[in-house]
Amino acid sequence: MEPISAEDIKAALAKEGLQLPPPPAAVSDYEPYSIVGPMVYTSGQLPWAPDGSLAYAGRIGADLTAEEGYAACRLSALLGLAQLVAAGNATGGLIRLVRVEGVLNVAPGFTAIPDVLDGASHLLNRVLGERGRHSRAIATNPELPFNCACLIYLWAEVAPCR
Amino acid sequence: MEPISAEDIKAALAKEGLQLPPPPAAVSDYEPYSIVGPMVYTSGQLPWAPDGSLAYAGRIGADLTAEEGYAACRLSALLGLAQLVAAGNATGGLIRLVRVEGVLNVAPGFTAIPDVLDGASHLLNRVLGERGRHSRAIATNPELPFNCACLIYLWAEVAPCR
Amino acid sequence: MEPISAEDIKAALAKEGLQLPPPPAAVSDYEPYSIVGPMVYTSGQLPWAPDGSLAYAGRIGADLTAEEGYAACRLSALLGLAQLVAAGNATGGLIRLVRVEGVLNVAPGFTAIPDVLDGASHLLNRVLGERGRHSRAIATNPELPFNCACLIYLWAEVAPCR
Repeated sequence: MEPISAEDIKAALAKEGLQLPPPPAAVSDYEPYSIVGPMVYTSGQLPWAPDGSLAYAGRIGADLTAEEGYAACRLSALLGLAQLVAAGNATGGLIRLVRVEGVLNVAPGFTAIPDVLDGASHLLNRVLGERGRHSRAIATNPELPFNCACLIYLWAEVAPCR
Repeated sequence: MEPISAEDIKAALAKEGLQLPPPPAAVSDYEPYSIVGPMVYTSGQLPWAPDGSLAYAGRIGADLTAEEGYAACRLSALLGLAQLVAAGNATGGLIRLVRVEGVLNVAPGFTAIPDVLDGASHLLNRVLGERGRHSRAIATNPELPFNCACLIYLWAEVAPCR
Repeated sequence: MEPISAEDIKAALAKEGLQLPPPPAAVSDYEPYSIVGPMVYTSGQLPWAPDGSLAYAGRIGADLTAEEGYAACRLSALLGLAQLVAAGNATGGLIRLVRVEGVLNVAPGFTAIPDVLDGASHLLNRVLGERGRHSRAIATNPELPFNCACLIYLWAEVAPCR
């Protein structure tokens, strides 16, 4: 499979009313992603707003509605996609998404977590089409960094450096 | 290493008094597994009963005994094995298990979680023998989808498509 | 990239005032690590003391200070490095670290978890230099095995068997 260009991703995002954001820096002494063989693995993507503040903080089902949780996952996935585009630029290009891992900050008793993580899956499926098909891991954690609403991790396949 | 056939897996399961179930569909907009290079990664396997209901729901150590938690992990691992057989059929065949990741829904203070996750490890080791040897990741989460007792993820090696 | 020798790792550890410990056995019926293609994935590394007891048990932010949590992550990372050296000895040698995954046992409301996990990242970056650059996954869990303070998982690249 040929790589997908950053331009094609930007065009698909535009249809969703979205722009490709710059890939966020890591919050500490690690890398935003690592590449090994044909794989790229992102670090956790927090739902950062463009001004560098957290767009979604607090517990889904208490501080935030399920719809806000969905939007948080969508935003984190968009930032993860920005990491994948950067990784594609550093190699022979982005081939396809492989896996989505989502960790949610939820209130006690909130178990409709797959619907919330769909905020990530729906966006990536729509933007990447067949290349977006992914397996998924879902988790909840009692505490997340800076009380963010979610962390999204993406695994993808990249082409060898040219 | 040559792939192991579905027939051999079925025969090994029969010795445990088990049948290979159909691989469950994903609960939302993602795939039950993804394949990249020689690897297959399943999505989270809930402990589904054959009728499509959850066989084990609730917290281990409160709603469920440790023995029931063990059985839940065993059931989820069996369903994960069904995913691996399906992935083997979609490629050149299943070679071996690589990793088991288990997420448990436990009551506060319940820390004997490795014993519970052994429900997955014991079954996979018995059925797959040398091919079942795996590293392991263990987690507990405050909330799981539909309040299921556990989620099991399997990583395995498959042969290239013939 | 050529593999790094165990001797070079020992020398780099000595500069930190550390010795390479023996790699701990798994706590149940699984392997301390698994190797597939060029990758090695460790099982969860608990912060074991040399005498086989847990050096750090309890919740960070309540039973343990943040500094003790940092030290727990550092110790678990050191034990994970011992697993990687063993995996390098079983193959053509250790090439580089790829990913660090850390699971922390924290008190309610303790969200400075990236600083605590830096105990792992700082050590691995210092000892392995450019070869230590890694992406990172961070989690908190309500209960961990034996109430340990943290679990650290390392992913690394190894050279093929010679």
